[in-house]
Amino acid sequence: MAGASVPATPLLKDELDIVIPTIRNLDFLEMWRPFFEPYHLIIVQDGDPSKTIKVPEGFDYELYNRNDINRILGPKASCISFKDSACRCFGYMVSKKKYIYTIDDDCFVAKDPSGKDINALEQHIQNLLCPSTPHFFNTLYDPYREGADFVRGYPFSMREGAHTAVSHGLWLNVPDYDAPTQLVKPRERNTRYVDAVLTIPKGTLFPMCGMNLAFDRELIGPAMYFGLMGDGQPIGRYDDMWAGWCTKVICDHLGLGVKTGLPYIYHSKASNPFVNLKKEYKGIFWQEECIPFFQSATLPKDCTTVQACYIELAKQVKEKLGKVDEYFIKLADAMVTWIEAWDELNGTPAAAAANGSAK
Amino acid sequence: MAGASVPATPLLKDELDIVIPTIRNLDFLEMWRPFFEPYHLIIVQDGDPSKTIKVPEGFDYELYNRNDINRILGPKASCISFKDSACRCFGYMVSKKKYIYTIDDDCFVAKDPSGKDINALEQHIQNLLCPSTPHFFNTLYDPYREGADFVRGYPFSMREGAHTAVSHGLWLNVPDYDAPTQLVKPRERNTRYVDAVLTIPKGTLFPMCGMNLAFDRELIGPAMYFGLMGDGQPIGRYDDMWAGWCTKVICDHLGLGVKTGLPYIYHSKASNPFVNLKKEYKGIFWQEECIPFFQSATLPKDCTTVQACYIELAKQVKEKLGKVDEYFIKLADAMVTWIEAWDELNGTPAAAAANGSAK
Repeated sequence: MAGASVPATPLLKDELDIVIPTIRNLDFLEMWRPFFEPYHLIIVQDGDPSKTIKVPEGFDYELYNRNDINRILGPKASCISFKDSACRCFGYMVSKKKYIYTIDDDCFVAKDPSGKDINALEQHIQNLLCPSTPHFFNTLYDPYREGADFVRGYPFSMREGAHTAVSHGLWLNVPDYDAPTQLVKPRERNTRYVDAVLTIPKGTLFPMCGMNLAFDRELIGPAMYFGLMGDGQPIGRYDDMWAGWCTKVICDHLGLGVKTGLPYIYHSKASNPFVNLKKEYKGIFWQEECIPFFQSATLPKDCTTVQACYIELAKQVKEKLGKVDEYFIKLADAMVTWIEAWDELNGTPAAAAANGSAK
Repeated sequence: MAGASVPATPLLKDELDIVIPTIRNLDFLEMWRPFFEPYHLIIVQDGDPSKTIKVPEGFDYELYNRNDINRILGPKASCISFKDSACRCFGYMVSKKKYIYTIDDDCFVAKDPSGKDINALEQHIQNLLCPSTPHFFNTLYDPYREGADFVRGYPFSMREGAHTAVSHGLWLNVPDYDAPTQLVKPRERNTRYVDAVLTIPKGTLFPMCGMNLAFDRELIGPAMYFGLMGDGQPIGRYDDMWAGWCTKVICDHLGLGVKTGLPYIYHSKASNPFVNLKKEYKGIFWQEECIPFFQSATLPKDCTTVQACYIELAKQVKEKLGKVDEYFIKLADAMVTWIEAWDELNGTPAAAAANGSAK
């Protein structure tokens, strides 16, 4: 029985890259040093390339600024956002590792209820190594966790689960609220530590936050495009949401799992709600059209790679969301460019065709 | 904004009945006295009608044994299981209250992590009074709870949520495992208190356990039929599962919500796994057919009452699961009889037509 054993958690030093958008806060890396130092960091600088980011001694890292992105991708660099943390997805593309962990520079180490520092990375790795259960809900949450299992009434044929492609971690302290909610509840803080990991069921969309996120690059990497945000674009703060909607539809189609819950990080500061409102303004309207679109999107059976799924989704975005605003036509084109660039840097899509479902 | 306020929890003394199958354990009611005494109890005795159940002083209760069920329902009593706790659903039928809470007699008061006794009933009422979010997943769990809200990227048009029809509570100590898992892990105990309530998304089935369950009888009562189990039937221990599958399909169709998580009760003793295996044996095979059946079941638009949905589902059960075993033909007939009996005791289905969705 799958639930009878919990896989050990190797540290995967050679299998995981940590991708961070511009680091504005020097404390950030110091705080994470015990957990991050063994890993390779990919830092993608979102603003002025002439500014220098000082990375403290001891970290193994590579840093890309806009000039690097332009040099590496040439005209295809147009698909990477400028002056916005959405540029981080360039890091997913240049990585050669199996797993990616991405985190914002205002996210610090959280403490569990016993007061112990939470090793977020270790929990993410555990989430990714354990199967998911997207086809039936387990009321005792993750059945593969120690001390848990599948409950009575859970079909035995489904207990092998599906490969986990995404591990979505949460945030203590400042919750990830939109600008209107930030304005209405400026002082609300998340203090509830919910000791659970659960699979988001097949057919259900969720708001994927990029603050504390890990994924299996080999299984789902090409779907983790953070869209066109920031400089020259009509919206911001929907980069991770866009990636989440696309990723979930493709995971559902390919039989892959998406988990949410543990681990928590400590989100130190709320971004400015007035600035956020300006960035989100159009997105608040557009998401009302995007959600029904993604909820009803279906992919043809012959789309068996992430790339093929993503190109098909881009086509549907252009056709259907293009009517909402011309921004989506531009975005759909950028989605195609992103895949072309991905394949250029990562070889042919055939290499990624070994996806498939555990189910 | 819906998430901005959490409704107060009135005690609903005149709006809720507690339904309990045979009480074999005198400690049970004493332990629950502070929480249950204000409410009316409906006890449905599952075994020998000549045996007397002694209810301690101070409780307001009515008790039904097999003779009463036969007298009240006449030939329609055939739909109520005999010598099995599935008979409890007779209590749902004779109740005249808006809400039902049902609990097993080996479930005691649990303690929260601070050591405080958990008032399970109060939490269930709160779950039922707050809306559900079946159409989109909120990563911070119940957005209506104090200290929580909808996260960034949650469509504003969906924030009113749906009416909550079912509140499924969990169990500390002995988890609700099937016989094979009980045999493999005889000593496993659930010690993890997960401080969350969440909505099971639309389109997702779950294993509904009847040990610690509350529901809105006016919204979903007629779907809470616990089937044919026990004496003279080929299976047991699938009564609540059957009710859960039917209920979830109908809730999804009618736009109603189903929540799971808090409150916990303390499940004191594991039932005998060898006896359970005998009862579950056929069900283990049959659930492999039932789950795909319910996952793909759709109800026609003109089914706008729970009764109409349930009759339609009975028809589909007979047609499709009838091929698996003749038991399902008998069960489908009993489903129809159940609705006839329900309507006889509760008036015409028109009264129940005021369901509808909050969405």
